[in-house]
Amino acid sequence: MKQPGKVYLIGAGPGDPELLTLKALRMLQEADAVVFDRLVSPEILSLAPSGALQVPVGKSPDNHPVPQERINEILEELALEGLTVARLKGGDPLIFGRGSEEAAYLSMCGIPVEYAPGITAAQGMAASTGIPLTHRGLATGVRYVTGHRAADKSLDLDWKSLADTDTTLVIYMGAATIAEIALNLMREGMPGSLPVMAISSTTTPREKRLISRLDQIGVDIKTMPLRAPVLFVVGRVVALYNEDAVRFEEALPMLAAQGDD
Amino acid sequence: MKQPGKVYLIGAGPGDPELLTLKALRMLQEADAVVFDRLVSPEILSLAPSGALQVPVGKSPDNHPVPQERINEILEELALEGLTVARLKGGDPLIFGRGSEEAAYLSMCGIPVEYAPGITAAQGMAASTGIPLTHRGLATGVRYVTGHRAADKSLDLDWKSLADTDTTLVIYMGAATIAEIALNLMREGMPGSLPVMAISSTTTPREKRLISRLDQIGVDIKTMPLRAPVLFVVGRVVALYNEDAVRFEEALPMLAAQGDD
Repeated sequence: MKQPGKVYLIGAGPGDPELLTLKALRMLQEADAVVFDRLVSPEILSLAPSGALQVPVGKSPDNHPVPQERINEILEELALEGLTVARLKGGDPLIFGRGSEEAAYLSMCGIPVEYAPGITAAQGMAASTGIPLTHRGLATGVRYVTGHRAADKSLDLDWKSLADTDTTLVIYMGAATIAEIALNLMREGMPGSLPVMAISSTTTPREKRLISRLDQIGVDIKTMPLRAPVLFVVGRVVALYNEDAVRFEEALPMLAAQGDD
Repeated sequence: MKQPGKVYLIGAGPGDPELLTLKALRMLQEADAVVFDRLVSPEILSLAPSGALQVPVGKSPDNHPVPQERINEILEELALEGLTVARLKGGDPLIFGRGSEEAAYLSMCGIPVEYAPGITAAQGMAASTGIPLTHRGLATGVRYVTGHRAADKSLDLDWKSLADTDTTLVIYMGAATIAEIALNLMREGMPGSLPVMAISSTTTPREKRLISRLDQIGVDIKTMPLRAPVLFVVGRVVALYNEDAVRFEEALPMLAAQGDD
């Protein structure tokens, strides 16, 4: 039997290829095969060796997603061929990335796994906008949650715990549920005037920003929809944002979207 | 009057120089002067141009810290000389890094500021140990707080909000206060059996790990002290840790500490 290869679980960061770590780049350049999610940009894929096999496994609105079980098998099959596999995920593989599920499966198969962490979207937003995730007197900590709701299920969030104005709350995958999230936070005592930023495709030329408040974001995000991926930042730190533009139409000069998704 | 230079606020990551982003490395290599904290390693400093001025401003147990106001002035003075200044901080400059305070001061002085985000210690720990920060069925989100207590003040944390077993809790700068933190979390209903990992100098050859539980960590950290910086991870995800070594003495083979602090 062939000596198995290995799988690198790599965080591709929020979008800007310059936000890859040196380790992520090195691993990507060692790859015989690249298995990548939808949110990984062509610019980042182009950093892989030109001869590397490219295997897209992301979901998109247009085609059916590859189920997680099948992704696990694809990684296994490629590694069992003796290949070095770069598994590229947006952001960080261990923050909403299911990297640990893939690692557990591969370890069970006897396939070595190594991680490269990635800049998560919240950090990309912060560096891009200047809004800090913590700031003395405004936020003593930061918290990342997901607004994603499984089909037929309600949002599984601890509203009482989330309603803490001393903590910056960052919501991933919340474009469809932000109105419900905001309502629940206000029910638990969060002020409607609390500032909220919605930001899409952060750190890329397609980045768009929308400044709103907790009692308006549910409406604003519908009337001024942002393209996925959208991140929401709720908290006093958003008040430090010092662009005059408070609606995304007037935000930083944007390059036209260029056939990206 | 001379044209002012600029200040790059750069996240140096958790320790491993390979975890710098490409952007951080590029900015560092453009620097005429490097202003750095104690937790930034010599390996990372050596990536700056050999002719760059090196200005340490970190605090250490042995010498007095440089007050934040003075750090602001140093950055201002260097930039007003027309220099490109790399301000290197451990982790991410906008997570417990006071990067936004420095940026606000510099902007007031008319000095341009640009950020490079960095891998924060929690992500470094995750990639190094395989413990995910979120994992389906174990943690729906993750939260970073600081255990640092200002002199003569009590810990300013919302215990009710923190006592959420569905969230991975990561405590920065908590070595002196972890016993008090654990006690308060248990008072709010967190189970004493909840697993806790303490990890020091993560992603470096000096990394040490200690596996404990909420009702033991206060004692364990005293009897088996780890050298700063220490990070605590509290939550069910720690149970996924699959090293047999559950005490740091038996953890991964360690290189001897090499004159580091």
